[in-house]
Amino acid sequence: MKYAVIMAGGIGTRFWPASRKEHPKQFLDVFGDGTLIQNTVARLQGLVPPERCLIVTHERYVEKTQKQLPAVPEENILAEPISRNTAPCIAYAATTLAKRDPEATMAVLPADHVIGNVEQYHKTLDVAFETARERNALVTIGIEPTHPSTGYGYIQYDGADEEETELQACPVQTFAEKPDQSTAERFIDAGDFLWNSGMFIWRADTILDQIETHLPDAHEAFAPVRETDGEIDAETLTKAFQNSPRISIDYGVMEQADTVYVVPGAFNWNDVGDWRAVYDLSEKGEHGNVIEGDVIMQDSSRCLVQTEERLVVLVGINDQVVVDTDDAVLVCDRESAQQVKQVVEYLHAHQFEEYV
Amino acid sequence: MKYAVIMAGGIGTRFWPASRKEHPKQFLDVFGDGTLIQNTVARLQGLVPPERCLIVTHERYVEKTQKQLPAVPEENILAEPISRNTAPCIAYAATTLAKRDPEATMAVLPADHVIGNVEQYHKTLDVAFETARERNALVTIGIEPTHPSTGYGYIQYDGADEEETELQACPVQTFAEKPDQSTAERFIDAGDFLWNSGMFIWRADTILDQIETHLPDAHEAFAPVRETDGEIDAETLTKAFQNSPRISIDYGVMEQADTVYVVPGAFNWNDVGDWRAVYDLSEKGEHGNVIEGDVIMQDSSRCLVQTEERLVVLVGINDQVVVDTDDAVLVCDRESAQQVKQVVEYLHAHQFEEYV
Repeated sequence: MKYAVIMAGGIGTRFWPASRKEHPKQFLDVFGDGTLIQNTVARLQGLVPPERCLIVTHERYVEKTQKQLPAVPEENILAEPISRNTAPCIAYAATTLAKRDPEATMAVLPADHVIGNVEQYHKTLDVAFETARERNALVTIGIEPTHPSTGYGYIQYDGADEEETELQACPVQTFAEKPDQSTAERFIDAGDFLWNSGMFIWRADTILDQIETHLPDAHEAFAPVRETDGEIDAETLTKAFQNSPRISIDYGVMEQADTVYVVPGAFNWNDVGDWRAVYDLSEKGEHGNVIEGDVIMQDSSRCLVQTEERLVVLVGINDQVVVDTDDAVLVCDRESAQQVKQVVEYLHAHQFEEYV
Repeated sequence: MKYAVIMAGGIGTRFWPASRKEHPKQFLDVFGDGTLIQNTVARLQGLVPPERCLIVTHERYVEKTQKQLPAVPEENILAEPISRNTAPCIAYAATTLAKRDPEATMAVLPADHVIGNVEQYHKTLDVAFETARERNALVTIGIEPTHPSTGYGYIQYDGADEEETELQACPVQTFAEKPDQSTAERFIDAGDFLWNSGMFIWRADTILDQIETHLPDAHEAFAPVRETDGEIDAETLTKAFQNSPRISIDYGVMEQADTVYVVPGAFNWNDVGDWRAVYDLSEKGEHGNVIEGDVIMQDSSRCLVQTEERLVVLVGINDQVVVDTDDAVLVCDRESAQQVKQVVEYLHAHQFEEYV
């Protein structure tokens, strides 16, 4: 059976002040059409029903997750006792799934992305599921780059010179980390690089085997979880996470494994990395502005303004982001939206924890 | 005796959202060194003591005025029942003063200006008081222009070619309204124009005579007030204002009178007309920013940021004004600060009265 494992443990600090430690990005209704995690589950409808969606999240977000996703069964919400990057998280989910269904094939999906063409998305995932099942393979989804972004990792693959690589699985040559500008341009010119979408598809038993091979400490750490029938007690689970190396599945497994496939995705994709992406993805109103809440604009254009309770007035302002919340306001140049991450680091470092 | 009549009836809508109908500009502590009206009274110390300062304000601000100016006797706070521009207001103050002291000479001073050199200010006012008393004259204070401002009225005067006109009263040729840019430049080139500061000095009986001559309806309207001994009842006062023409003392009297003098002021003067003026007059911190409250600046310069309760974060912002209040935030290009007035007009016109 096909399952989705939705990774929802992050905070998304670049969405401060809307995102907070207690209310992270994936639970925000960024575009006014449902929260990002709700849309992630909804767009699987027809491919993977909510009953076969698992959500892995920090235990502080379990209640929020249940509230936002009433169709997902309670036992499908897996709480991480501590955050140790994606490898332990995926080990936990795969272990759980393998026990429930030895034939389980799972798509690991970020909870906070936006996808434009759901039909193509399903077709792409279908090819990936099939490849994973038939070849016992690790499969990832790559996105055809539209520009030399320095914000994504890249995947170099074989078969780019073939007539049609979309909707077929191609062998991965290398994974490349987020590049600098000139490297990114070189990747684009080369023509055989895709953006790494962070979506992985594999059989539960395949990834568990691969973890055993490439991350034996993680495999060992999760032995007590594997061997427990029924519910896992909190202490056992916490120990498993504590004893696992703090590593991503990308570094820990994908880059080490012998045969990895990528399916080039033929759908619009955006990881909604910052406020600028929200502006870009939103439908524009008058003068190119994107407005939510009580906002008055005078001589202002191409701005994103979000306010919950209070009145926000812009006069003579262009290309900015203004986000107003109960206790804090952000005024940010749209092109500097990436820097909001540093603001949150500053808040942590300078006794402003109450705003984090 | 010398008196000061401080005009404190305005709202100062260009200081929205800090200024509100219930909390106008003159009661704001714009520079963190006392409110504008407190500073207006304080800088008269040595020339006119608080006991001889009269405050004319709308009745809704009487309590606020008493609270901010405890040294000013209660009977010196004159409440306007309705706002009818400056002529009725001055008629009321002059009538009151003339009854108390037939020899009264009064300086009419706006409550919301900033003055840089108090010693020179006193000397200038002294010359004006002397001229008013000795020549029974209407006297105004002019400010040597520093640039061709379109935001002030101008006064053309005789004697600009004399070696030293400061600290002496010169006959006024004409009053000119706020000019357009080219006219303002012509005024500056001409060399015999001063900015109209809105400060007037005259004997109480002189201005009452002049009102009788040039605004007979106002004179007539205030007859019952003149003829009442002791306290004026509310109805009599309201009728006097209602029956007075709605006109400024500038149009109604100054521009009509035969002989008006101006004393060119040798002090720094600013009418603090908008947030830009506040920025200009404030001491600058790092990167030319002026900050009040919990503010975090990243890659931001030459901004004015004021916040009362909440955290304000600027990222990549230059030359802007951000004013955060309990229920509203303003984000304004510094050069567009004059437009804040239109925002308030918009609020009035579009069911946002709660924010006015």
